[in-house]
Amino acid sequence: MSDRTPYAQQVLAGQSIETPSWAFGNSGTRFKVFAQQGVPRDPYEKLADAAQVHKYTGAAGSVALHIPWDRVEDYGDLARHAAALGVRIGTINSNTFQDDDYMLGSVCHPDAKIRRKAADHLLECVDIMDATGSDTLKLWFADGTNYPGQDSIAGRQDRLADVLAEVYERLGDDQRLLLEYKLFEPSFYTTDVPDWGTAYAHCLKLGPKAQVVIDTGHHAPGVNIEFIVAFLLREGKLGGFDFNSRFYADDDLMVGAADPFQLFRILHELALRDALLPASGIAYMLDQCHNIEPKIPGQIRSIMNVQEATAKALLVDHDALAAAQRAGDVLGANAVLMDAYNTDVRPLVAEVRTGQGLAADPLAAYAASGYAEEIKAARVGGSQAGWGA
Amino acid sequence: MSDRTPYAQQVLAGQSIETPSWAFGNSGTRFKVFAQQGVPRDPYEKLADAAQVHKYTGAAGSVALHIPWDRVEDYGDLARHAAALGVRIGTINSNTFQDDDYMLGSVCHPDAKIRRKAADHLLECVDIMDATGSDTLKLWFADGTNYPGQDSIAGRQDRLADVLAEVYERLGDDQRLLLEYKLFEPSFYTTDVPDWGTAYAHCLKLGPKAQVVIDTGHHAPGVNIEFIVAFLLREGKLGGFDFNSRFYADDDLMVGAADPFQLFRILHELALRDALLPASGIAYMLDQCHNIEPKIPGQIRSIMNVQEATAKALLVDHDALAAAQRAGDVLGANAVLMDAYNTDVRPLVAEVRTGQGLAADPLAAYAASGYAEEIKAARVGGSQAGWGA
Amino acid sequence: MSDRTPYAQQVLAGQSIETPSWAFGNSGTRFKVFAQQGVPRDPYEKLADAAQVHKYTGAAGSVALHIPWDRVEDYGDLARHAAALGVRIGTINSNTFQDDDYMLGSVCHPDAKIRRKAADHLLECVDIMDATGSDTLKLWFADGTNYPGQDSIAGRQDRLADVLAEVYERLGDDQRLLLEYKLFEPSFYTTDVPDWGTAYAHCLKLGPKAQVVIDTGHHAPGVNIEFIVAFLLREGKLGGFDFNSRFYADDDLMVGAADPFQLFRILHELALRDALLPASGIAYMLDQCHNIEPKIPGQIRSIMNVQEATAKALLVDHDALAAAQRAGDVLGANAVLMDAYNTDVRPLVAEVRTGQGLAADPLAAYAASGYAEEIKAARVGGSQAGWGA
Amino acid sequence: MSDRTPYAQQVLAGQSIETPSWAFGNSGTRFKVFAQQGVPRDPYEKLADAAQVHKYTGAAGSVALHIPWDRVEDYGDLARHAAALGVRIGTINSNTFQDDDYMLGSVCHPDAKIRRKAADHLLECVDIMDATGSDTLKLWFADGTNYPGQDSIAGRQDRLADVLAEVYERLGDDQRLLLEYKLFEPSFYTTDVPDWGTAYAHCLKLGPKAQVVIDTGHHAPGVNIEFIVAFLLREGKLGGFDFNSRFYADDDLMVGAADPFQLFRILHELALRDALLPASGIAYMLDQCHNIEPKIPGQIRSIMNVQEATAKALLVDHDALAAAQRAGDVLGANAVLMDAYNTDVRPLVAEVRTGQGLAADPLAAYAASGYAEEIKAARVGGSQAGWGA
Repeated sequence: MSDRTPYAQQVLAGQSIETPSWAFGNSGTRFKVFAQQGVPRDPYEKLADAAQVHKYTGAAGSVALHIPWDRVEDYGDLARHAAALGVRIGTINSNTFQDDDYMLGSVCHPDAKIRRKAADHLLECVDIMDATGSDTLKLWFADGTNYPGQDSIAGRQDRLADVLAEVYERLGDDQRLLLEYKLFEPSFYTTDVPDWGTAYAHCLKLGPKAQVVIDTGHHAPGVNIEFIVAFLLREGKLGGFDFNSRFYADDDLMVGAADPFQLFRILHELALRDALLPASGIAYMLDQCHNIEPKIPGQIRSIMNVQEATAKALLVDHDALAAAQRAGDVLGANAVLMDAYNTDVRPLVAEVRTGQGLAADPLAAYAASGYAEEIKAARVGGSQAGWGA
Repeated sequence: MSDRTPYAQQVLAGQSIETPSWAFGNSGTRFKVFAQQGVPRDPYEKLADAAQVHKYTGAAGSVALHIPWDRVEDYGDLARHAAALGVRIGTINSNTFQDDDYMLGSVCHPDAKIRRKAADHLLECVDIMDATGSDTLKLWFADGTNYPGQDSIAGRQDRLADVLAEVYERLGDDQRLLLEYKLFEPSFYTTDVPDWGTAYAHCLKLGPKAQVVIDTGHHAPGVNIEFIVAFLLREGKLGGFDFNSRFYADDDLMVGAADPFQLFRILHELALRDALLPASGIAYMLDQCHNIEPKIPGQIRSIMNVQEATAKALLVDHDALAAAQRAGDVLGANAVLMDAYNTDVRPLVAEVRTGQGLAADPLAAYAASGYAEEIKAARVGGSQAGWGA
Repeated sequence: MSDRTPYAQQVLAGQSIETPSWAFGNSGTRFKVFAQQGVPRDPYEKLADAAQVHKYTGAAGSVALHIPWDRVEDYGDLARHAAALGVRIGTINSNTFQDDDYMLGSVCHPDAKIRRKAADHLLECVDIMDATGSDTLKLWFADGTNYPGQDSIAGRQDRLADVLAEVYERLGDDQRLLLEYKLFEPSFYTTDVPDWGTAYAHCLKLGPKAQVVIDTGHHAPGVNIEFIVAFLLREGKLGGFDFNSRFYADDDLMVGAADPFQLFRILHELALRDALLPASGIAYMLDQCHNIEPKIPGQIRSIMNVQEATAKALLVDHDALAAAQRAGDVLGANAVLMDAYNTDVRPLVAEVRTGQGLAADPLAAYAASGYAEEIKAARVGGSQAGWGA
Repeated sequence: MSDRTPYAQQVLAGQSIETPSWAFGNSGTRFKVFAQQGVPRDPYEKLADAAQVHKYTGAAGSVALHIPWDRVEDYGDLARHAAALGVRIGTINSNTFQDDDYMLGSVCHPDAKIRRKAADHLLECVDIMDATGSDTLKLWFADGTNYPGQDSIAGRQDRLADVLAEVYERLGDDQRLLLEYKLFEPSFYTTDVPDWGTAYAHCLKLGPKAQVVIDTGHHAPGVNIEFIVAFLLREGKLGGFDFNSRFYADDDLMVGAADPFQLFRILHELALRDALLPASGIAYMLDQCHNIEPKIPGQIRSIMNVQEATAKALLVDHDALAAAQRAGDVLGANAVLMDAYNTDVRPLVAEVRTGQGLAADPLAAYAASGYAEEIKAARVGGSQAGWGA
């Protein structure tokens, strides 16, 4: 296996995982949002925190925005602020679930006026892409129903298809949309894009600039996520990931915290297709809520978890694996995979960091920097950022 | 089957299902709480709305309070207000999950000072029971952990046991506590009372005044709830129900909306043991969130759903069932059950209502009353009741 | 609602639900196959039993074959035997999971020789379609892997696509193939067609003669099956159903026994699109195992369950439903649906039967016929039919 | 962490994991049992194969028997055969699910004669314990129902309690019974011991010689198994484990193959209480089916997986963990756990082996031994061992 180390380190050195601006604000459950000290009050402060994650990991150079949570007067100015901090604006995430008008849906709402409003918001997001230089629009719809009969399942698909087509039409040549699916929550009976099949079917009709994005917390129990990864890769329709982890529902815990072996298996499918390289165009993103742990260290740890799982995936001996598979050697093929998984890759990843002039231990370096104490002292007063639910 | 109709109607006439004060306030998901017009601003207005549910169903004479959401200056006055409205105060529900101190738990928190604070709140709830005449304390703890290693699973059990013992000691001769369990949410990795077995083991040690309460939305997929009902009934440890329904997680939808056959099967186990009679002491309660539907009609419909499922359960021919079971007649025994389930019991239940001087159709009667328009007009300004999360 | 009764009865009178030949043989779990008395010894006897189900329900005129379980010398003779019994040969079901060669898969096997063997079997099934006049080939593959790394997920898709294309090419002008999906079992880590999305993507590439078939027991917990029904109908890719019911896994219990409300919701989506009419071309089939209940009555009861759920679905007032949906009346729309569900349709269905010259109660009529006793006496010796696993 | 290595190695050197005789015979799913070459034809040959697992791992010195699969004329002779091979007879496992009489249950059957038969079998198992020197009876009942109404849930509990009491009474002073629970399969609607709570309640009534055994594949999705471990340990009611792994149902795959992090978390709870030491009395057992992989290597690999997860669990720095937990340091406490999990413990475990005079790599040593080829050549003819379903 040792001969794959240099390659693994090279890929890791080029790996970029996008952080979400909302991970730095307060979040919680329907029961309680616990406020933390030092939390940003505006998108500028969120970017400052995100830049810290990049500063210590070297792998988090782009930051996702969420509109309207990150609405500002001058997006060009925000983009310049990001650049000054050493990061850039990544995907633009729409939000059509927090206006009272959206109680029964947004793009799938039975009332055309509400759908118009929702579509206009999506078009505004493309405007923001133009202004910030973002090339990716990420669409997740909270649309759905709570009770059988509440609305027409098929009718809602028609409405969804119409709005998607309008937004697709608006995209520039170098822009794309990623359609996200989710089995449940906040709707309970139906969600209008519940699974990858639904997202795939819509993207297929839209065209090449529409792709599916996989949030690792959005599946039914027992669903094999790496199968979906392999399938969408084979179809050229995998656009990206929202990484997080979960035990039961959409827990939005730190990626790799609940089932690190699953994360490894997902990354292994990507490594098999060279899809961990930037040239693949796949957007790797975190989508998490640090409800009870500090947010910047939570993000740093998550980046590290993805890096370590990536390192293991890159160490898999593809030739030995393929040979065992061809021979029908069940235990042997599994052993090739497990051999990489069981490797302690922390030294390997640390070497990548030191090779980039970073500290070997990002969490310790951040803790030593005093930034946490600094923002606690500085960010007093004002209104802390959050989901605004 | 027809000879069981009079008995069914007699039991239905005496059936009481408690409504939760919080069902009348706003509620939602972590994504959004959609405000509704006419929502109560205080516990007095909540009781007024709850009284409407009782007025049209005749079966919702008691109302659960949730402390601190329903904290008032003078609980005796609140109880008299309830009586004047034709209802009474039912269970007192504690809340140890909305103070910033409770971020890492309440009664299971690693810090003894926080546990003391939580225990004091529970003791305050018993004081409120004394003041309102309530005989039942319902305990649900949001305690748990989000990450493996975060806290000691066993240590948290020790702390839980200590607080429960202190509260148990404080109960009066005619008071009891019901311990609720829940597999997930708002904690994601562990919850400190995840299943009926845990609640049962604690109640067993506490003594006869401690019983298990079953919330129908708190189980893992595939769990057979009526088995738990039958088992706890056999052990004398079933204290009550929080009724609601769910498709995936703790959706808190209207009871009977997601799986009416399951509700029937649960009530059938109770009918087999005469546990649907008030003498059983089992507390039948709703615990629901009407996030998108109007709240008073949502409660009325839920009461009707329980009544109809109860009627079907009461129609099961126990003798024929037992005979088929003894004979090993799989299809025959199942058919006896399904025969009752397939019966349209709406006329039977309507007759019970008209026999009590109520309208046959509670929803139509409520709609015709003008109450909904009245509260929309009257309750303008002020702060709407909600979870306050 | 009453004005929909004649229409419902007319549709019911024309409804046909296919029975599976294998439901009349012995079946069981990996732990035990309990043999029953009077079980058929060959395909001819299976057809005789299936004809009994049709005789008493009037709705089970076609019978699915399973190759090689139903392999005979002369399929034309078998088809004539069916016709003489008053039934016809329905879908042909392939079986590529019971030969020792298939331990690591059939059409997805890493070894081309095994794939050739499996493909030849599928082509043989088309030959049998030609010989029997069957127009539908139903493909379910037990292919998959048990351990991570065991085989290439994407490679297996390539192999699957190749075989499917070859079989598709072989189909006659009036023949089609239905591709079935299943999340789990008998493979545990991956199955090669785990969900509707996978089946849909393959069928889309194959062409109009390839459609998806939904087995109601093949989904992850929490998956909304009626959404899939609505989606595939909208796409013109819904080919049929394998009806059964389950509590946890692929239990293959009698349809409607575990969640009758779900069955109703599925049929409601079909009724909305007139897809319950024979002209829709959708194949309605049972796929069940009567492990502990007698098989012919088990099938009769299942047909009745589908009929009753269909009757309820046909009673839904589509105009009132659409009006409530347009108005955003959550409770009202749900109530329209529940009104139909709560109706006791047994008299309505019985009337359809008597209108066709059948007994009102098929189970009683079958029991009175003496057929069960007859086959117990006659079918002594020989080797009982079963799965042959 | 390094200072915990000697302790870890010492515990590992004393660790014993029991292998199940049935893992060496053929097994499969309801769809197919694939026969393998060289499979044992009788209990003597099974013990010979089990001895190979012990020979190369040094940790599998006891072998579980399954009655009647391992019924022999002279159990004393079988025990001496085991001793000669360097292993001993471990738990005796009863089987009351493969006789036609047990179609509707065994110890819970409605017919007293069948219950008598089942109870007699259990008593026979205690006789076999006496004859073989086994001190542990493991009870798993396939009892349950497939359809709602099929039998009385509570009645079946009464019958179960009666038989358990009779068997408990028969146990010698140094014997115990372990009661196993399972949510589903082979019964689909109810199982009579579905969860740990049910097993616990029965064991509590029986007395100190009755304990709960946890099969890691027997839970609903989302259930936190290590919570159950911690809870039962705290109550002194944890008797042992049936280790295996699963993705969806009771897959009986190699332990550690599906979720190695879960296995580690379970072992961590045991390490916290010194319950990995033999003095704890906890029985660590494998219960697996090697349907498609070779059986002896499958068992060896499983033992290695338990050893490696045990090593990681033993490396957890308990003091640092407790300190972080007390401080409410969510990320810090999690990091302590993950630090141990991320360690590559294979060298540490290999050192334990070489310290015992064993090869560092058990699988390579077994492969080099020629035993596999030997049994393939020798075991020709006769009837291969299997479940006999």
